[in-house]
Amino acid sequence: MPRTSSLAIAPSSLDEARGSMQVLYWAVRGETLKRASPLSSEDQCIQSMPEASPTKWHLAHTSWFFDAMLLRPHLPGYRPFDERYYYLFNSYYDALGAHLPRAQRGLLSRPALDEVYAYRRHVDTSMEQLMEQSDSRLWTRLRPLVMLGLNHEQQHQELLLTDIVHALWRNPLQPAYQAPTGDVHDESDKACEPPQWIDFPGGLASIGYEAGGQDLFGFDNETPRHTTLLQPYRLCNRLLTCGEYADFIADGGYRNPQLWLSDGWAMVQEQGWRAPIYWSTPKGSSPRDWRIYGLHGALPFKPSDPVINLSFYEAAAYAEWAGARLPTEFEWEAAAADPRIGQTLGEAWQWTRSSYDPYPGFRPAQGATSEYNGKFMVGQMVLRGSSRATPSSHARITYRNFFPPAARWQFAGLRLAKDGKQ
Amino acid sequence: MPRTSSLAIAPSSLDEARGSMQVLYWAVRGETLKRASPLSSEDQCIQSMPEASPTKWHLAHTSWFFDAMLLRPHLPGYRPFDERYYYLFNSYYDALGAHLPRAQRGLLSRPALDEVYAYRRHVDTSMEQLMEQSDSRLWTRLRPLVMLGLNHEQQHQELLLTDIVHALWRNPLQPAYQAPTGDVHDESDKACEPPQWIDFPGGLASIGYEAGGQDLFGFDNETPRHTTLLQPYRLCNRLLTCGEYADFIADGGYRNPQLWLSDGWAMVQEQGWRAPIYWSTPKGSSPRDWRIYGLHGALPFKPSDPVINLSFYEAAAYAEWAGARLPTEFEWEAAAADPRIGQTLGEAWQWTRSSYDPYPGFRPAQGATSEYNGKFMVGQMVLRGSSRATPSSHARITYRNFFPPAARWQFAGLRLAKDGKQ
Amino acid sequence: MPRTSSLAIAPSSLDEARGSMQVLYWAVRGETLKRASPLSSEDQCIQSMPEASPTKWHLAHTSWFFDAMLLRPHLPGYRPFDERYYYLFNSYYDALGAHLPRAQRGLLSRPALDEVYAYRRHVDTSMEQLMEQSDSRLWTRLRPLVMLGLNHEQQHQELLLTDIVHALWRNPLQPAYQAPTGDVHDESDKACEPPQWIDFPGGLASIGYEAGGQDLFGFDNETPRHTTLLQPYRLCNRLLTCGEYADFIADGGYRNPQLWLSDGWAMVQEQGWRAPIYWSTPKGSSPRDWRIYGLHGALPFKPSDPVINLSFYEAAAYAEWAGARLPTEFEWEAAAADPRIGQTLGEAWQWTRSSYDPYPGFRPAQGATSEYNGKFMVGQMVLRGSSRATPSSHARITYRNFFPPAARWQFAGLRLAKDGKQ
Amino acid sequence: MPRTSSLAIAPSSLDEARGSMQVLYWAVRGETLKRASPLSSEDQCIQSMPEASPTKWHLAHTSWFFDAMLLRPHLPGYRPFDERYYYLFNSYYDALGAHLPRAQRGLLSRPALDEVYAYRRHVDTSMEQLMEQSDSRLWTRLRPLVMLGLNHEQQHQELLLTDIVHALWRNPLQPAYQAPTGDVHDESDKACEPPQWIDFPGGLASIGYEAGGQDLFGFDNETPRHTTLLQPYRLCNRLLTCGEYADFIADGGYRNPQLWLSDGWAMVQEQGWRAPIYWSTPKGSSPRDWRIYGLHGALPFKPSDPVINLSFYEAAAYAEWAGARLPTEFEWEAAAADPRIGQTLGEAWQWTRSSYDPYPGFRPAQGATSEYNGKFMVGQMVLRGSSRATPSSHARITYRNFFPPAARWQFAGLRLAKDGKQ
Repeated sequence: MPRTSSLAIAPSSLDEARGSMQVLYWAVRGETLKRASPLSSEDQCIQSMPEASPTKWHLAHTSWFFDAMLLRPHLPGYRPFDERYYYLFNSYYDALGAHLPRAQRGLLSRPALDEVYAYRRHVDTSMEQLMEQSDSRLWTRLRPLVMLGLNHEQQHQELLLTDIVHALWRNPLQPAYQAPTGDVHDESDKACEPPQWIDFPGGLASIGYEAGGQDLFGFDNETPRHTTLLQPYRLCNRLLTCGEYADFIADGGYRNPQLWLSDGWAMVQEQGWRAPIYWSTPKGSSPRDWRIYGLHGALPFKPSDPVINLSFYEAAAYAEWAGARLPTEFEWEAAAADPRIGQTLGEAWQWTRSSYDPYPGFRPAQGATSEYNGKFMVGQMVLRGSSRATPSSHARITYRNFFPPAARWQFAGLRLAKDGKQ
Repeated sequence: MPRTSSLAIAPSSLDEARGSMQVLYWAVRGETLKRASPLSSEDQCIQSMPEASPTKWHLAHTSWFFDAMLLRPHLPGYRPFDERYYYLFNSYYDALGAHLPRAQRGLLSRPALDEVYAYRRHVDTSMEQLMEQSDSRLWTRLRPLVMLGLNHEQQHQELLLTDIVHALWRNPLQPAYQAPTGDVHDESDKACEPPQWIDFPGGLASIGYEAGGQDLFGFDNETPRHTTLLQPYRLCNRLLTCGEYADFIADGGYRNPQLWLSDGWAMVQEQGWRAPIYWSTPKGSSPRDWRIYGLHGALPFKPSDPVINLSFYEAAAYAEWAGARLPTEFEWEAAAADPRIGQTLGEAWQWTRSSYDPYPGFRPAQGATSEYNGKFMVGQMVLRGSSRATPSSHARITYRNFFPPAARWQFAGLRLAKDGKQ
Repeated sequence: MPRTSSLAIAPSSLDEARGSMQVLYWAVRGETLKRASPLSSEDQCIQSMPEASPTKWHLAHTSWFFDAMLLRPHLPGYRPFDERYYYLFNSYYDALGAHLPRAQRGLLSRPALDEVYAYRRHVDTSMEQLMEQSDSRLWTRLRPLVMLGLNHEQQHQELLLTDIVHALWRNPLQPAYQAPTGDVHDESDKACEPPQWIDFPGGLASIGYEAGGQDLFGFDNETPRHTTLLQPYRLCNRLLTCGEYADFIADGGYRNPQLWLSDGWAMVQEQGWRAPIYWSTPKGSSPRDWRIYGLHGALPFKPSDPVINLSFYEAAAYAEWAGARLPTEFEWEAAAADPRIGQTLGEAWQWTRSSYDPYPGFRPAQGATSEYNGKFMVGQMVLRGSSRATPSSHARITYRNFFPPAARWQFAGLRLAKDGKQ
Repeated sequence: MPRTSSLAIAPSSLDEARGSMQVLYWAVRGETLKRASPLSSEDQCIQSMPEASPTKWHLAHTSWFFDAMLLRPHLPGYRPFDERYYYLFNSYYDALGAHLPRAQRGLLSRPALDEVYAYRRHVDTSMEQLMEQSDSRLWTRLRPLVMLGLNHEQQHQELLLTDIVHALWRNPLQPAYQAPTGDVHDESDKACEPPQWIDFPGGLASIGYEAGGQDLFGFDNETPRHTTLLQPYRLCNRLLTCGEYADFIADGGYRNPQLWLSDGWAMVQEQGWRAPIYWSTPKGSSPRDWRIYGLHGALPFKPSDPVINLSFYEAAAYAEWAGARLPTEFEWEAAAADPRIGQTLGEAWQWTRSSYDPYPGFRPAQGATSEYNGKFMVGQMVLRGSSRATPSSHARITYRNFFPPAARWQFAGLRLAKDGKQ
């Protein structure tokens, strides 16, 4: 994968460094607006479940990050756009005071979308000013925070899409975020090659992000880079497809408790799971005539597409049914650079069999951003790779995404693994 | 109260009848738009609790009523604006098929507000056409349905306001639906006369709406007009004021279980009630320095204003504290025409001590509208009078409003009663 | 109905009065023990839902009533059995301090059943002493409280049975409270006569309990006796039978929302109601081969038995289906003494179409017992008559029983009514 | 720790093997009865929360295990004690059919305790017969299942205690499971030595249970034994004490969100945590005058006792406050045999920073017992060591106990760890 679009930069001088960062800043900030642009102000106001946020809130919160972490502490004479936003658009940073409870984000018909856009412009102008004014000493402190702010915004660019898909899907009209393009209507489906198993011998492997390497940015949860010991294992060369997953459903996968983790089976029963969240069969159609809802609305099933919008429970049940397992995040990372392994980045997040625990020697970032990752390290599972909704400059093989095992609204699929021969 | 503005008409000929109804139709439909007009499309999309509905939904549902009850059955060649609206904007009429669950009305970012306005115009044009085309025979059938549709719309005009007040109050910014007018800022408060007790001897009283009387429209739940027997009683000549209610709070009314009905005390404890829902005291102010949120935002306490936004539980607890009781709906109605009794209509709904039971001989309206009132006759309490938010032509003394005893977001206060001397 | 077994006594002298009361006291207290006797200490500890109480708790709470209301205030030198019981076995009297939350009664493995029996004996001995010692002046104060305490205990005698039926029914083994007697196994069912409609002309009727009449005890909620005005009506001469109710089920009664009050239909859907709570059909049997669980376990359906264990919602839906309605509590009481009306007392409680509102002029009893009835006068429906589980000396035609409309575990059925000819 | 009392046996011949196992069988089965013996039949019936089970259920379920896993499949002519128990006392083995939902175990007043004892005897007699009859070939198959059944029973011996402590604590009388012994009343508390940090160099470590080693039994979740790579680390030589934990409380530990994992802080707020679940301060006492409820009732605080009954969230917050962390389960196991590390077994379970994930190469046991451990491998944290309630022959350093991070009713404390010097 070409990394030319990488967010990361290695400037040779302050001016160049600031200039590069400014280019990056505007590019990232612009992408957020672009992703919101197909949506009406009403669409941008909807919160369809406590775990998802309105588009407008994403627009504001990503600006709040620069406002709270950079402008207020570092820009002399900075006047906040609206003092009340400090409370409204804080997500979860307890060190920065109280915040609006998550489930109440959908109540914010005010500030109006236009005011949120004005807030973004206010922050952008001030950030431009801050970057312009910073001398070398200040720049050293600002640079990592700006980089963090931009990567933070890129995370929300993906969430903006996964959240609005859920919101529009919950609408009985099931409108599409974007009209499908021509080839989506093409019902033909290129034959899907059988998966191949690639052997890895295990042994010592270096895991984690290291400053100064190919990727110039990494979150604290990817550090420190360290050595781990792997047993021999095998990985599938590609992601699981919708067609393969449909076989699992047709074989009664959702009715057989033996395939499920105990908590997963409880969810299947309580919530009546019968297929992935966005799959449905039109009335009167055959049981395999699936339609799958996504960014382009509800479209006919394409068996060769990677399956997405699975929970960890569903991914693990599938693996059990297939006589395989999910890879650990370490197996995944150690193999990801191997050219025989396809679809690592840019297709779908891949659930791993690893709980989201701290790496040995993990230290959270200092200051307010210490709450960024570390405090979520319990009760969640790690996903690796990246999805079609992930900005490509945001993806890297050391990336640790994480969600609770029941989460179904992310663009998350799986890659099968097996134990290797000792 | 002059009844010249009454909705009801008594035409002498078909043309005149249709003409009068058309005038009425446009007046009522226009009032709904007028009430929505201060609100942005985002505001109109918000649902702040399952019991309240978005403004946009009110706009659409009131149109659906004409669509479903009049146009589809009676206008030849009628083409519905969008077939899916039949499901989306049905409130609770099971005879007309499934409907969107009430708690999901806030998910409707689509149809967009503009589409809902277009739906209203489509319905209006079609209704105009239907009324124009109807001959005498058809008119006989249509007239009661049009009248019902317009009274239905007037009910939603009030709900539109009570619901949006709740939604904007839940927003931490607490914006006002409308800017306060000049005299609202006037902190002076005219001295409030002590209440007077007016004696009524009881005896036989005629209760309920009767066709052909002063009010030319009544809901089925106000019928049949019948005779009841009242014991002697006394009624307050005016509504309870905010100042009087503040005395109850200051005396520990919310901390004394002896004053409350059992279910009411459970609510006080579970939900931490300490004052009416929209009352608050700014930090650092004295405990009686109340601010009360309403259509004009949070405004300083005016002791002589009628208290509103009480639940039945709070109203009953106040009455107990005051050594009085709430009147029955029959006592209220029998006294309402007495000139010594003030503030009957147009100030605040008045909780009564009457459960919402059917009148003797009650028969629901026939057809789909049979679900209008009768199926709610359990678990609710009757309110009498009308509020500032009630369209004046919609108010009458036989009107039976009803809400569950815990409902706090209506413009509901109380008038005290006592037993009279036998 | 012969009233020779009535609790009430009219003594001619103090000694005789005290003597009669003592006889009554021991008779009532003994009956409670008798009802508990088929149950193991484990059975007596079970609480199957928050609304129901363990048998042991009933045994203790009925003693607490004498302890708290009579012995502590009136017996000099009285030493409570255990001070902690004052909290443990208070049901809901806020004036007497805090109490164990209702849903936690099933946690009381201690005090052990033997200790509760000892508590009963302690209270009994002390009550004997108090009654013996009282002079005429004290007796005047005590007598109504003792009568209240005994009637209170009789209420719990019925609840003891309805609660344990629910608890044992929830046990997958579904044991019987008592082995069925021989004739219960008799599967033959005497032909059930078609119901007859009895006409009543309406007019003025005296309603409520009056001291000095036939029934020497009445609760405060039955007072004051007053006159009401009834429209002409018709009442069924007998209760609804299981066979008649089975016709309603077979006709799709539980699938037709048009028959149900709105809140009732919500319960049908949320809780999956398909038949009365204790009705089931064994696997492989015909859909009308009902078995009905009760005090004697699950027994074959007897079509002529009065249907019991209905909620108000089910009773009202049946009436709607039958083209009839439920009687008001006033219609019921005015007709109950008519010899043409059968099964008034001793068969099944009969849901009425009356909400549990206060009678005109109602005043709660004074002192701690003021919380006995009045604070529940909202959100409940009145039942009239009495059931097979009601002690016969506790039944009278002015009795107002009340439960929430969704309650299904009481021995409650219905009698149909219709409007009469004007 | 001497391992002479170990459950495990290594017989040299079939007779000896069977004989040893029979001795073991009766010893383990007898211990369960001994632990139940201080409790009344009422106590044994109580379920105080869905996660905990009644004592009687433990008695029955441990017998069910032999019934279902050994007697039904392997004893010719075996007649089950009661066919209905197969459903009643199955805990969660979906392969063996439906089971009583966990939260309903407290409804089982029937079967009576005496019947459950009879069930135990029936199973014991039959097990004796099965072991006697088995030839060498059958014995090879039975032996691991009997060992599993006995270890399973030992797990429930601990749960029996932790569950009844919760049940009796929820009783407002807070009775003790056992009267405290004399020295418990001794309020003196031996001075607690400051903890010492023991350095471990990390490197390759062998982890997991291996057949043929010192411990002759291990659960499937402890296998396979494998090598892992550890970074240098430091471990405390002893467990955290109550006194040390009280310092954390006094310093505002429960009020500072910065110390807590996000899910943990949510629990603190939702459930109002202010101290460990069983800690309380009598009214009017000083804020550090803790009383701690346990098997012997509520006793005065002993600062040098290991703190127990913590959730993982509380353990992790304490570690954060102390500038340390919890050890991983691998660090713990690699250090546990070091003589400088005290209190490894027999004092308190020790929360680790390891999620309960499968070991590399993990395979669940085959057959019905495959559900024993594997299906719980998500959403739980690993605890190591053993507690005072753990049968000593059941403890070993490879043991992996696991509970959800919010669980507070287990005898779980912590040992601090830190990163070592690289």
